[in-house]
Amino acid sequence: MKNRICSLFNIQYPIIQGGMVWCSGWELVTAVSNAGGLGLIGAGSMHPDNLRHHIQRVKQHTNKPFGVNVPLLYPEMDKVMQIIVDEKVPIVFTSAGSPSKWTPFLKEHGITVAHVVSSAKFALKAQAAGVDAIIAEGFEAGGHNGREETTTLVLTPSVKRAITIPLIAAGGIATGDAILAVMALGAEGVQIGSRFAVSKESSAHVAFKQRVVDSGEGDTMLCLKKLAPARLLNNAFYQMVAAAENNGASTQELTLLLGKGRAKKGIFEGDINEGELEIGQVNALINDIPTVADIFHNLITEYAEARNRLQSNSLF
Amino acid sequence: MKNRICSLFNIQYPIIQGGMVWCSGWELVTAVSNAGGLGLIGAGSMHPDNLRHHIQRVKQHTNKPFGVNVPLLYPEMDKVMQIIVDEKVPIVFTSAGSPSKWTPFLKEHGITVAHVVSSAKFALKAQAAGVDAIIAEGFEAGGHNGREETTTLVLTPSVKRAITIPLIAAGGIATGDAILAVMALGAEGVQIGSRFAVSKESSAHVAFKQRVVDSGEGDTMLCLKKLAPARLLNNAFYQMVAAAENNGASTQELTLLLGKGRAKKGIFEGDINEGELEIGQVNALINDIPTVADIFHNLITEYAEARNRLQSNSLF
Repeated sequence: MKNRICSLFNIQYPIIQGGMVWCSGWELVTAVSNAGGLGLIGAGSMHPDNLRHHIQRVKQHTNKPFGVNVPLLYPEMDKVMQIIVDEKVPIVFTSAGSPSKWTPFLKEHGITVAHVVSSAKFALKAQAAGVDAIIAEGFEAGGHNGREETTTLVLTPSVKRAITIPLIAAGGIATGDAILAVMALGAEGVQIGSRFAVSKESSAHVAFKQRVVDSGEGDTMLCLKKLAPARLLNNAFYQMVAAAENNGASTQELTLLLGKGRAKKGIFEGDINEGELEIGQVNALINDIPTVADIFHNLITEYAEARNRLQSNSLF
Repeated sequence: MKNRICSLFNIQYPIIQGGMVWCSGWELVTAVSNAGGLGLIGAGSMHPDNLRHHIQRVKQHTNKPFGVNVPLLYPEMDKVMQIIVDEKVPIVFTSAGSPSKWTPFLKEHGITVAHVVSSAKFALKAQAAGVDAIIAEGFEAGGHNGREETTTLVLTPSVKRAITIPLIAAGGIATGDAILAVMALGAEGVQIGSRFAVSKESSAHVAFKQRVVDSGEGDTMLCLKKLAPARLLNNAFYQMVAAAENNGASTQELTLLLGKGRAKKGIFEGDINEGELEIGQVNALINDIPTVADIFHNLITEYAEARNRLQSNSLF
């Protein structure tokens, strides 16, 4: 295999599709895995029975490796983990919680485990818990985000210095140039979210995808920091949150403002005004809604071109 | 010359030392220019007569190109600009203000002008104003910072797509790996601040330098957003600001809290508790106080090693 990430997951390209809520159903996952990357089902927006359904559909539509992303703080974790084992899911990415409880359970069942972190400190804890790889996700990433606000350019080398297991960079990566950039920083793979959220096969509502295409640089902001920090696109809901935060709104006031089901409303139902529109800063670089196959073609072509550009001039 | 940035400034390496307040006196500037990069005097912390003194000392200690960084919103701008012309400074980097007023004046006097921006929109305006190069500075940078919070990984390609003049990336760059990373994103040069702030030749107080060395990942935060956003190291002063902001403090309250001379107190006088400690997120990667010559040696060696690493594996 080409490197430790390709080898660990048995994939052709070290490109992982983030398991995003309301975007990452079986159609996106099979398209990514069939293109030679690693598709991840986003369990964060699925009731356990629905998760089982998506896993089964993936197995019907690809014989390539795939995985499930599991936010560990979500309810019914026992049921979710049992479904993953029963359905013989080969790979699990865990996030939003401590990996120490579930990593041994998953490893005992022969499952490869990777854990998402926002700091070198958490990366070391995850490595000690026995995970096989680390995803270091920077401040520019969409949706839920770390409190330290460390960007991918700083976080990637910082985590790389701390750990010995393979490192996957995430946050701000939507082009082949950016893949090359994080490889220069020591990553052996990338996790790409937003670019795949805005693809034909993503289960997000077309109004959400079009809203991202129409948006530009500076149109996302990290907010809800007193709850769990999330990067959202600027819309009516975001403006309401920003005004409240500007006036020093309490955790309770923000919880009330957020209510239930905001992400579903925005991403899945396409209410682009009142919904929570989770997307990364790379919204600035996303101008179309291509197929997953076209995204892979572009990433690979851009990577090769950027590499040739760097090889052909010798600045130092 | 090797690329458009080397050619524009007539320098050996496309490495520019940011003109930082209280760090960038004649000693740092001459060391950087003599090492083959471009040293910039930080006029932001100098009264006009002091600026003239530093320019004259630089000219006494190097025959290489050098420049001055001018924050355009500062007082006595007429006097500052006249000194720059009188002293035949070859290069000016402008920041913190509109480049439309002073760019024509500087260009008429044969001075090369570059302008610092935090968005593609401002980059286009600066290009239209006639500047020769753009510095795109990301969210991870120390000190004063843009309101959009766009990180270097996203800002660099976004600005690159917008402009035709050469692009210098800034923010989060302290190693040769990071230079290679932003070159992959389309930059033709880098502006490095924090790494040079913590060098032997920097005029910052040794207590400030040591405090940065002792700090780690996640120890800086962007604050004072209702005034002018600034990235500061976490200390007693920062904690006071954070508590006030958490409670929705007004612009007036924050202005009062900030008072006068906080950056001088922290960086130049070494009051690491009550001063404003401006430093970028790369504080996480800074563990020593080397000479400028050693910093250049490391940057060049790391760049070459990272480039060889990328060339020797073909992932795509």
